[in-house]
Formats: sequence, structure tokens, C-alpha cells
Amino acid sequence: MAVLTPRSTDFPRWYQDVLDKAELADNGPVRGTMVIRPYGYALWERMQADVDTRIKAAGAVNAYFPLFIPESYLRREAEHVEGFSPELAVVTHGGGKELAEPVVVRPTSETVIGEYMAKWTQSYRDLPLLLNQWANVVRWELRPRLFLRTSEFLWQEGHTAHADAADAAAYARRIALEVYREFMTSVLALPVFVGAKTRKERFAGAINTMTCEGMMGDGKALQMATSHELGQNFARAFDIDFLGPDGGRHLAWTTSWGSSTRMIGGLIMAHGDDNGLRVPPALAPTQVVVLPVRDDDAVVTKAREITDALTALGVRARLDARPGLSFGRRVTDAELKGIPVRVEVGPRDLAAGNVTLARRDTAEKFPVPLGEAAGRVPVLLEEVQASLYAQALALRDERTSDVTSLAEAVEAAATGFARLPWHLVGEDGEARLAEDSLTVRCLQTPDGALPTADTRDEDLVCLVARAY
Amino acid sequence: MAVLTPRSTDFPRWYQDVLDKAELADNGPVRGTMVIRPYGYALWERMQADVDTRIKAAGAVNAYFPLFIPESYLRREAEHVEGFSPELAVVTHGGGKELAEPVVVRPTSETVIGEYMAKWTQSYRDLPLLLNQWANVVRWELRPRLFLRTSEFLWQEGHTAHADAADAAAYARRIALEVYREFMTSVLALPVFVGAKTRKERFAGAINTMTCEGMMGDGKALQMATSHELGQNFARAFDIDFLGPDGGRHLAWTTSWGSSTRMIGGLIMAHGDDNGLRVPPALAPTQVVVLPVRDDDAVVTKAREITDALTALGVRARLDARPGLSFGRRVTDAELKGIPVRVEVGPRDLAAGNVTLARRDTAEKFPVPLGEAAGRVPVLLEEVQASLYAQALALRDERTSDVTSLAEAVEAAATGFARLPWHLVGEDGEARLAEDSLTVRCLQTPDGALPTADTRDEDLVCLVARAY
Repeated sequence: MAVLTPRSTDFPRWYQDVLDKAELADNGPVRGTMVIRPYGYALWERMQADVDTRIKAAGAVNAYFPLFIPESYLRREAEHVEGFSPELAVVTHGGGKELAEPVVVRPTSETVIGEYMAKWTQSYRDLPLLLNQWANVVRWELRPRLFLRTSEFLWQEGHTAHADAADAAAYARRIALEVYREFMTSVLALPVFVGAKTRKERFAGAINTMTCEGMMGDGKALQMATSHELGQNFARAFDIDFLGPDGGRHLAWTTSWGSSTRMIGGLIMAHGDDNGLRVPPALAPTQVVVLPVRDDDAVVTKAREITDALTALGVRARLDARPGLSFGRRVTDAELKGIPVRVEVGPRDLAAGNVTLARRDTAEKFPVPLGEAAGRVPVLLEEVQASLYAQALALRDERTSDVTSLAEAVEAAATGFARLPWHLVGEDGEARLAEDSLTVRCLQTPDGALPTADTRDEDLVCLVARAY
Repeated sequence: MAVLTPRSTDFPRWYQDVLDKAELADNGPVRGTMVIRPYGYALWERMQADVDTRIKAAGAVNAYFPLFIPESYLRREAEHVEGFSPELAVVTHGGGKELAEPVVVRPTSETVIGEYMAKWTQSYRDLPLLLNQWANVVRWELRPRLFLRTSEFLWQEGHTAHADAADAAAYARRIALEVYREFMTSVLALPVFVGAKTRKERFAGAINTMTCEGMMGDGKALQMATSHELGQNFARAFDIDFLGPDGGRHLAWTTSWGSSTRMIGGLIMAHGDDNGLRVPPALAPTQVVVLPVRDDDAVVTKAREITDALTALGVRARLDARPGLSFGRRVTDAELKGIPVRVEVGPRDLAAGNVTLARRDTAEKFPVPLGEAAGRVPVLLEEVQASLYAQALALRDERTSDVTSLAEAVEAAATGFARLPWHLVGEDGEARLAEDSLTVRCLQTPDGALPTADTRDEDLVCLVARAY
């Protein structure tokens, strides 16, 4: 009996099975909330560490702003409050008393951070102000799905203030391309379409939203991260102004950008197969699991030596010699958890001076001389990383169709992405697509680049798809 | 004019001044909440990274549990709900509707984690279950003070389940001594008294609470971290039971333990002086700041070379050549922020082939030959680390008095800690101490060790103090 529902039978059921069997997450007791189990959290910790390094390299510093926001703050930016009101969780009682003003649990922190940016920004010398925070946020969800859409999720949210529009635009773009796209491509092994959202799909209060859209194993799109130019909307609402070199006071230009535990859902759905997760080595908390085939002292000792040799080479290796669990069960567990490479150590192999290396991405297995085993792994891990990216890219290419009419787009988007000139769609077309539960995922230049302010509307192409 | 209120004039005011001028934290818009500014957060990130490594070395793994807990969960453990009810924040509305059951914002997570421990614990092979989470928690505060007592704070909370009482006790003790005390001693450079809380001062629902008590610059105590044996109280309330090797079902024994952003308050108050923070080098985000005395190309170039040389040696060094800020202002800023060592690079010194090294802990300054400057720093940093610990220990020794009656304890605790046999105090004595706003901070063996289950009551000594 298969451990998981096959993907082709029922993709959502397969996803749920992976979450359970790979011990990634569980439903929380309050509807829509989530328990991130240790293995799921280990994936998040690795994502966090890598994204955090990239954010710091882009010059931003971490800070922390309160969970609770006065309701009145949200009302200061009209589009923002309209966008978030239906999703708010509201605290009405604190310390045993009803509060004079209810407070909302942050759905995102533009408003409260705006208030402090205003305080900290006096002169142009204080700009750009580049902040980031790692936090939990709450958006009440009626149809929750673990990692993809939960009432509470973990994320980083960057918030920056700049002296002029061009600097703000360049920074938001840099985050989308150099932080998010680079991370997804080189660590998650996930090709993403980076483009601009249509006016209809923009963040509530933004003048431009850039997005990284990944293709999942079922051909649907997942918005993996977004970066917003907020123009002067929040600066106006929160009085973020500064003394310019000209001696006059000017309103700042702000941006915000975020990536979340949703990326774990993307990782599962983009790379997973019928045997479980497949984690790219650059991300994997455990890159190699060493499995003694039998609970035999000589075999376990040899397996431990290999684990130590791998660790010494800088490989994240772990010995799995759990007593009471058969070799087969331990292999299944390593497959479910998507550990990129297994080293299997058996008495028969050992007698021939060999161990077996097994790749999770291709299911290939091959014997190697014991003395060479550890040394072969680093290159093998690079191959697995490249192969997972290549497989995801091949799927995306295969399932992305260039079409020339809205009707063709609807048809192609039933199984993947449809690409067509934006002027064939437009806002009327978006309404038409919505009837089939399709959306324009993003707008790009014809050669697949992120548009700039100079890109003309008639030169844009759009990607249409079903989406999570 | 002094930048800060002197400590001897008004310690609380000095503390608030340090928070402002060193740009550590600010009040949030909702009463009792806190904004942790980038420098304050950088201190927290360093604490987190170090404590996290120690927790993992003790075998625990990180996970994440929901912010929202059904109200009914808290009621399952009688003492627990009684202890936390007055401090709860309650969400009554979500997604635009009134909730059928209000949910509380976690004040701590024993209850929700207990629910999942019960699910994950089937057999004795699943034990010990060693979990930790980094999270925000909310306890409504009527008299907030930044970092020390805020309605929302950041912390790690460990939660473990064990097959027997001895294993649980040993683990809770190991966390108190090997994780918390070691971190405070070797990284924060803070000597702490590790002892047991009296019955009156225990965590709500615990059968034993161990605590690390530090002495602040004004002689008051700060509880820096706690580790609790919860007996079978939560296991009973949440059905955390397991199949034993004997084939029978047994109730588990649980522990919990936490350390928080409160440690930043402790760091400020234990090491700070009238010029600002003094951060121990092992913690400092910036260990060395290199300051060109003048905005002169040759000087700045030399300063940059020294910064690079320090970085190459693994020192966390930063060049501060901010234009428009005088040398004096930059020195003051480095002092306020408590940067352990300054390298001051001036044209006169350079002409003599020297630069000046300045220690923050002692205010000593001395010239060193340019070519030796970087190389001298690592040893100097170790000296500063040891000196801060020695100074804190000297203060604590000086202000800790052995006394032989409750009346003497009240007198000694007006300016520091009083130590006396616990049988001279007892529960009646605790009530008497409370009239003078004094508490028993912890119980120890006469030689200053953490008591064990075998320590007899008549052998205990107690430490009495004012406390934050």
C-alpha cells in the first residue's frame, strides 16, 4: 500500500498526506491556525537564515514592532483598511476589562511602522530607512490550508522609506529580484516568473506590486513573495516627511515586501512526488542520511564513521540507526522527508568494500567504494540541486503556453500557465477570467523581464493561471 | 551637560534615558507594548542565536504553536488559569464576526503544547519529547516598563515530556544550569544566583520552579530566566500518556522553561554606567568601532584598513566615519551603545605611527603602534569580557549580606540582597517581607548550589531582595 495518495489521483489529498506523513504541520485548535512541527520548522529556520542574510546584504536591519495595532491606525489609509477589514482579528478585552479602543492583531505592519518611521525621519540624512521584521501576522481565513492560507502565519516584512520615487522603486525591485528571486532560484531550486501585478491584484494601498510566481506540480500558480511600491500613500497617512537638502519639507516614498511560511507549501507542491517531499540540498536541514541496513555493531560503526566523515566535509549528515525501525521503514521516512541523498550501509556491500548511494530526486542507486563514499557526496548534492531546478523548469516550460486569445488562455490555464499580450485581456478580461477561477498572475515584458515604469502597456504580456 | 540622568540621581530615569539615547526601544501605540529598535533587536538576535545553540545542544528541537488558544484550554489546569486570567488579552471578533468561543492570545503555551504532546506521545519510545519555540506572548500589564515588563514580549519557551519524574527533574535542572546560567555567565558576563522559588513564587501549575536571579546596578534583583518541573499536572489535564515497556499506560512528567527580551533589560541595568550601556564583547553586535578623528581621506583610509584587518581576524568591527557628525558625537554614540572597544585614528597619532585603543569598561585609553592595533584587539576583548564579569561579581558580593534575622534582612535588602536561613523566614516571613515590597528571590543550599529533591528544608538558605 502506498503511504501517500498519488498526486495524479487527488493533488490536495496528496498535499495533506505529505504534511502528515513527513511530520511537517498539523491544524491548530482554533480554526485556521497551524502547528508547525519540528521538521517543518527546521525547513523554515533554514529559509529564514538564508533570506535574512540576503536582506541584510541589501542594507536593511531587523527590528520588532507590536502585535497589537490601534484600530484607528488602519483607517488612516483608505484602500488599506478596505483591503484588510474582512480579515481582522480584534482584541476587545485585556487584563480582565473591556478596552476603551479595540485593538487589531496585525495583519501586516505598514501602519504601525509608518507611525515610527515618521518619528525617526527628520532629515534626508536619515533616509533611506531600511527596516525588516520577522513576525507572526493574523488574517482570518474561512478556507484555511496549511502553509498556503492560514489565519496565523510567520513571515518577514520589510518596510522602507526613501527620499524620492526612483530610489523607492529601485529598492522594491532589488528586493524582488536580488533577494526573493535569487533565493527561490538558487536555494529552493524553483524557477519563478517575476512580474508586476495588475491594478486589480495589487496590495491594498500600493501603486505597484511585484510578485514571484511559482508553478506547482498540478500546474497551478503560487504567489511566493511580493514587493510593493507604496508611493506616498502611507507617508501621507502617517506624516513621514523630512527636511530636504533644499531646506524644505518633503513627503517620503515607502515600500514594503514580504515572504512567509507559504514558501514551505510551495516547496512541497513544486518538488514533491508520490513518495513525499524532495528538498533541495541547499535548503535541506539534513542533506544526507546514513542508514545501516541491519542493527549490527560492525555495520552501525561503519555508518557512524561515514556520518562523521561527511560532517567533517561540511555536509549536514545524520545517522539514522533507530532501533525497532526496520531498514525499509527508515528508507520510507527519509523519502517522505525528502532527504536529498541516502548512504545505505549493508553487510553484503561492506563485504565487497562498498556502500550504496541513493539520490532522492531520481531514485537512482549505485554502489561506491567505502573509502570514496563521503568524498563523492558534495558533488552529488550539487547535481541533485541542479536536477531539481531543471525538473521544475522543464515542467513549467511544458505547461506554459503562448496563446493569442482570451478563450485559448482559459483553455490552457486549465492545466498550466497561459501567456498572451496584456492588451487582449485588460480589466474586462480579468473579470471574464474570474468566472473560471482564473487570474492574471503577473505582467512581464515579452522577454520575461520585470516591467519598469517605462514599459508601455501595449508591450506587456500577462500570465494567466489557476492559483493557490 | 550629561547626556543621561546619572544613575545615582534617579536609576529608573537613567534606564529610560539609556533606552532612548542608545536607540534600544520605544513605547508602542497600545499601552504596554514595545517597539524594539534596530540596535535593541541586534542585541536580541545575538542572545537568540547563542541560547538557541545551547538549547539544541541540550537535545531540544524548535517548533511553532499557534498564537491563539481556546479559552477552555486554560481552564483545564486550575492553578494555571488562576495565575494567568488577570493578564489575558481576549479576541472576541474574527473575520468580521463575533466568535462562538473567544480565544486568548497566548500568555505562555503549556496548554496548547500539552494538547499536541498528547497526540504525539504514544509509547515510551517517543519520550523524552523535547520542544522549544521562539515566539511572542502577551500578558496585559498595568505598570509596563520597557524590556522588563511589557504586555507583549519575545521569548523562547521550552516544553518537554518525560517518562518519569527523575528524568523531567534532571532536564529542567540541566536547562537552568547548562543553558541559562552558562549563557548568562559566559556571554552576558552576569553572575546569577540559581535557586528554587518558594511555593508562593512558583509558576502557576509547577511543582518546582528554578530561577536565575541577577543583581542590577541599584542592588535590586531581576529574574532572568526560569525552568519549571510541572509534575503530572499538565499531563493529567491534557492526557499526555504513553504505553510503557511494561505494557501499561502511564502519565508523562512535563517541564517548561523560558528566557525573554527581559534579559536586555538585565544587560542594561547590570552593566550600564553614567555614559550608557556596556555590552560584553561575547554578545556585542559590534565589538569594535573604528573612529577617524577627522574627515580626512588619509585618516579615513587608514581607519578602513584597520576595520578590514579586524574583520579578517573574526572581530565584529565597524567603521564609523559618518559625515556631519563630529568625532566627539561619534565617541558619545559608541559609549551610549556600549561598544566594548574603540580604535581612534587621528592625524597626530598617525604621524607618530600610532592609533589609540579605548576600553568602554574602564574608560582606559592607550596608544599602540599602528601595525599592532588589530592584533591587540582579540586579547583586549577577552579582558573586557572578564572585567565586566568581575565588576558585576564584585558589586554583587559587596551588596549581598549574610544576616541572621528577618529584621536584618529587611534592612540589608533596602540596598542589596540579604541571605539567611530559610527556616527564619518561612511562609509567614514571606508575608511580612511583602509589606516592605521584598520577596524571597530563591532558595539555595548553604554553599550556593541549586537545591535538589533531597535537600532538607532546614538546610536551605534564602536570598531576599527588592525586585523588578
